[in-house]
Amino acid sequence: MNEYIEQTTRTKLKRLPKRGHFDRETVYRILDEAFVCHVGFCLDNQPFVIPTSFARIDDRLVIHGSAASRMMRNLSAEIDVCVTVTLVDGLVLARSAFHHSMNYRSVVVFGKAKIVTDEKEKYEALKAFTGHIVPDRWPEIRPPSKNELKGTTVLSLPLAEASAKIRTGGPVDDDEDYELDVWAGVLPLNLATGAPVPDERLKDGIEIPGNVLNYSRK
Amino acid sequence: MNEYIEQTTRTKLKRLPKRGHFDRETVYRILDEAFVCHVGFCLDNQPFVIPTSFARIDDRLVIHGSAASRMMRNLSAEIDVCVTVTLVDGLVLARSAFHHSMNYRSVVVFGKAKIVTDEKEKYEALKAFTGHIVPDRWPEIRPPSKNELKGTTVLSLPLAEASAKIRTGGPVDDDEDYELDVWAGVLPLNLATGAPVPDERLKDGIEIPGNVLNYSRK
Repeated sequence: MNEYIEQTTRTKLKRLPKRGHFDRETVYRILDEAFVCHVGFCLDNQPFVIPTSFARIDDRLVIHGSAASRMMRNLSAEIDVCVTVTLVDGLVLARSAFHHSMNYRSVVVFGKAKIVTDEKEKYEALKAFTGHIVPDRWPEIRPPSKNELKGTTVLSLPLAEASAKIRTGGPVDDDEDYELDVWAGVLPLNLATGAPVPDERLKDGIEIPGNVLNYSRK
Repeated sequence: MNEYIEQTTRTKLKRLPKRGHFDRETVYRILDEAFVCHVGFCLDNQPFVIPTSFARIDDRLVIHGSAASRMMRNLSAEIDVCVTVTLVDGLVLARSAFHHSMNYRSVVVFGKAKIVTDEKEKYEALKAFTGHIVPDRWPEIRPPSKNELKGTTVLSLPLAEASAKIRTGGPVDDDEDYELDVWAGVLPLNLATGAPVPDERLKDGIEIPGNVLNYSRK
């Protein structure tokens, strides 16, 4: 597979092109770190943007939901979809209001999603959803039953038309503003975990597994 | 203004209706905590989902951008837009793969955005963007010049057709799975700030302001 994703009219950045990234590794790393994607689709030119969990399997993004959901039903018809993932990394505090910004990493994917019908492939997707939120949890839990598999729709979107956009670094102020007595810089933001909250009905003697206790996203 | 937002066919939840919230306070609190919204729009039934910063002013959501941006140009034509904001609060780790979930709070807004042309209103919007990321920073920084105001397009979207969706609490497992020797519970997630990084060209003797040093989102 090509290391770079070909740019198209939809993914090409017209403004601030230096923020654009088209190498698969960058795109994949952002997808793998995020918990939620925003799935956009149109019904008679009416946009819908639905947040949902997802996973990446090689060069495909998979989402799942109840077969009864409006989104899954509509996307199953292979209409155009735009899936966006955004990580906010910091507040960029400039000397002027105008140059305030944010550091972020985002990915936009265009394409059409297909229903995953092959049972083995579907099973692998469900495995990937769990693995996406807690790596190595799969062997510890009860795998999906035949009925659960049946009641779940899995859609697969190729990562063929995708791009990343990244802003890093400090504020960029106007020359004359550097003389102002204003604090400027970056306030870094990151996702932190709190102490795990055991389920009320947890069986006695079950300890918090290491992959939860020492959870790390990166 | 009514405390509750009227439900429409677009905002009504067909599935899991108990997760739906239509009171303004809940909707506004989620909007005020989030940094980024995802703006969805359609061009010939092709969806675009663009992450962008925003602010809330009373019962309106405002976004801004360069007058040259594709999104701002298209939305200025008052096409239908769907704006979604999502906060991820925790990983819900069940005993079965099937019942894994996430705790989250999201808001979806439907409507048409209008360009803010009134200069005073536009100025207030720019003030709100700064206030949205760091409250009380506005008096410390250089306000926008006439030219900066001119080069910025501000769009205003009424929060008239909006709803929140919230999941809280622990996993809900199948009865027979409570006997399994699996750790189950919630791993809380929250946004943390790192140590402020002063700009390389910061003037000597300027201390980190309290609203940055003791930054808190809630």
